[in-house]
Amino acid sequence: MVDIIHRVGIKAPLAKVYAALSTIDGLAGWWTAQTGGHSKVGERIAFRFRTETGEEIGGFDMDVLELVTNEKVRWRVTSGPAEWIGTEIEFLLRRHDDYVIVMFAHRGWREAVEFMAHCSTKWATYLLSLRDFVETGEGRPAPRDLRIGDWH
Amino acid sequence: MVDIIHRVGIKAPLAKVYAALSTIDGLAGWWTAQTGGHSKVGERIAFRFRTETGEEIGGFDMDVLELVTNEKVRWRVTSGPAEWIGTEIEFLLRRHDDYVIVMFAHRGWREAVEFMAHCSTKWATYLLSLRDFVETGEGRPAPRDLRIGDWH
Repeated sequence: MVDIIHRVGIKAPLAKVYAALSTIDGLAGWWTAQTGGHSKVGERIAFRFRTETGEEIGGFDMDVLELVTNEKVRWRVTSGPAEWIGTEIEFLLRRHDDYVIVMFAHRGWREAVEFMAHCSTKWATYLLSLRDFVETGEGRPAPRDLRIGDWH
Repeated sequence: MVDIIHRVGIKAPLAKVYAALSTIDGLAGWWTAQTGGHSKVGERIAFRFRTETGEEIGGFDMDVLELVTNEKVRWRVTSGPAEWIGTEIEFLLRRHDDYVIVMFAHRGWREAVEFMAHCSTKWATYLLSLRDFVETGEGRPAPRDLRIGDWH
């Protein structure tokens, strides 16, 4: 098993970063505008991606495994691309000086395939979208996300 | 051992992407403005990082292990932060439709430490700097690099 890991620092109150990761409206502000479902432990969040012209191009369903206020969010992928099924996504938060440090992990990839490399780069851009969303109110959720190549 | 992997697509001629990875001037255009040494197999490249006011804040020396024109660049880290020593950095290039696909790997980390997570995110931003440098002539090499948190 192999993991994607990232780390960003956000200049904002811890509660504001946690809200961006633990509420449907928050998630829609930086990852994908079309986020639905329920962000509660034992429930499911539905992330869907559309082109700018509205065509649905894919998505993920995540079971919410853990929500620890201002500390941790953890999901398991239950539907989406085959490589993602069964993987887990985790955000750990802590305050350090002026920053909220976000330790991100997307764990449990079976192999370090090319699609994982794409997702690793893409996650970095989404975490910077999270940072911008929390700090300025303006993220770049899909379909306004930063394109990084032929795979979007 | 654990690896950082990334993937970006660049709309440019293959030779132009290869030049940005295999020449001192190219590397200075997207990673760090203060790049010296010699990009030849068996020789060493010196990457140094300064603040915007000119203070040196660190750097890496890399032995050049492989240079395959328009295909591959590989280095081994011989000095720098302890976690980097002995790790290898590899860029694989290939053309796919309108894009040059860059498969990046920073291999051989002993542990998935927090500094590795920071470097993973930071590499993503530098690879997008590489993309912008090659496509537009304007990258964001240090010290004009995109800050991602308290660790720069």
